[in-house]
Amino acid sequence: MEKVSTYCFTVEPFYVDFTGRLFLSVLGNHLLNAAGNHSHDRGWGIDQLNEVHYTWVLSRMCIELYDMPRQYEHVEIETWVESVMKLFTERNFLIRNADNGHVYGYARSVWAMIDTSTRRPANLLTLHDGDILRYVLSAEEKPCPIERFKAVSPLTPDQQPDTIPLDPKYSDIDINGHVNSVKYIEHILDIFPVQTFETHQISRFDIAYKTEAFVTDPLQLLCKNADGEYHLEFRKNVGSGKRPDGELVAQARIIWKEQ
Amino acid sequence: MEKVSTYCFTVEPFYVDFTGRLFLSVLGNHLLNAAGNHSHDRGWGIDQLNEVHYTWVLSRMCIELYDMPRQYEHVEIETWVESVMKLFTERNFLIRNADNGHVYGYARSVWAMIDTSTRRPANLLTLHDGDILRYVLSAEEKPCPIERFKAVSPLTPDQQPDTIPLDPKYSDIDINGHVNSVKYIEHILDIFPVQTFETHQISRFDIAYKTEAFVTDPLQLLCKNADGEYHLEFRKNVGSGKRPDGELVAQARIIWKEQ
Repeated sequence: MEKVSTYCFTVEPFYVDFTGRLFLSVLGNHLLNAAGNHSHDRGWGIDQLNEVHYTWVLSRMCIELYDMPRQYEHVEIETWVESVMKLFTERNFLIRNADNGHVYGYARSVWAMIDTSTRRPANLLTLHDGDILRYVLSAEEKPCPIERFKAVSPLTPDQQPDTIPLDPKYSDIDINGHVNSVKYIEHILDIFPVQTFETHQISRFDIAYKTEAFVTDPLQLLCKNADGEYHLEFRKNVGSGKRPDGELVAQARIIWKEQ
Repeated sequence: MEKVSTYCFTVEPFYVDFTGRLFLSVLGNHLLNAAGNHSHDRGWGIDQLNEVHYTWVLSRMCIELYDMPRQYEHVEIETWVESVMKLFTERNFLIRNADNGHVYGYARSVWAMIDTSTRRPANLLTLHDGDILRYVLSAEEKPCPIERFKAVSPLTPDQQPDTIPLDPKYSDIDINGHVNSVKYIEHILDIFPVQTFETHQISRFDIAYKTEAFVTDPLQLLCKNADGEYHLEFRKNVGSGKRPDGELVAQARIIWKEQ
């Protein structure tokens, strides 16, 4: 089995924004589907892992884009595993025009595996006798020329972030009962005025998933413009108990560029 | 060219709800994509029509489902044109499991064509010398065993419908700058408690698009349970000018069944 797989899709009209460019959230869906298919084809799919009480958990994702695929374009996503550590594995993506080879951008993701009965992390190096190591393509063999996720400090009240209440709804919830990882991206972009998308495009988007949110968790979305970078956080249980600032659910960062 | 075309898709994990069933809004996207591809393959695609200043406008859609495709299932959508009148054409859909032929349900849609320079409807019978008539498959030749859209009266204040404010956001807006036809479906289902989807499934969903809404139009979503059927309306310009009840943007009806 090859270490890299390629998955294709067409940018259908109902998946582009008002500027004719693919929604970032839909691109995120395609990246996660490519990850799922690549894992499945090598015996490490969520459906196969569920049978042995394990599942993949997305921990971090960063996407860096030179430009965004447009309506009717044919896009291919290459994906491969860059590294495997005890508790995490890094999976990378290349996003390319399938007809002319133009590279739209790259993405990186970090995944953990958890035991669904104990909710504890599994040791990736020993699971299935370390079979996953057979699929690693090092950064020297297959470079991914974008920086890894850069951790940022949580927002503090003295930064006076904008705060938007957000109650998860039916369409936000995935098959595990959690707020869908891609819906966080959609909610984040929805707080920007649409004019932003006329004059700017997303150059870099980072997101870290800290803990799960359920449909019963009212969320707050915090946003702060810090020197041209937007820092965003989803929090739950705000104002309750010992942690009045709430519990960090996800943390994101957007860098826009003028177009 | 055959009169019927078939388009396939796989129910990917990120497009199913918490019960493991395809989101109705995503099914709606696939129906519209099938319509777009079927038209395009016969020279009547939106991209081809735009060059001659025409475009398709979706007027009505009804979907009737025996059950809903589930995660990882392969689905095929057959679509064909049932009739062409001067100002409208009817397009039908059959939704089927691609592996075992199980029929999930059917859908009907009604489309108008407008001249994008004058915003007036075009005469489908004379456009391109009536070429579209070559693709008609009558109800006798290819039955679609669900009822046509049933018009319902607009809700009145004395019915005391629930009213939910809804400000269109970036992710709601399509390439024409309007609220995306499928996003209305998503917003409608989001007003139901998630428990509804545990005990019930959608048996029938009808929607009629009356006028466009833009990102600058604050909307109201009205909902009334009328003898087990839910009647829903999107209105804009509520409380303004001569029409304090606002202008009807879209009208929908849902029938649930216990599962």
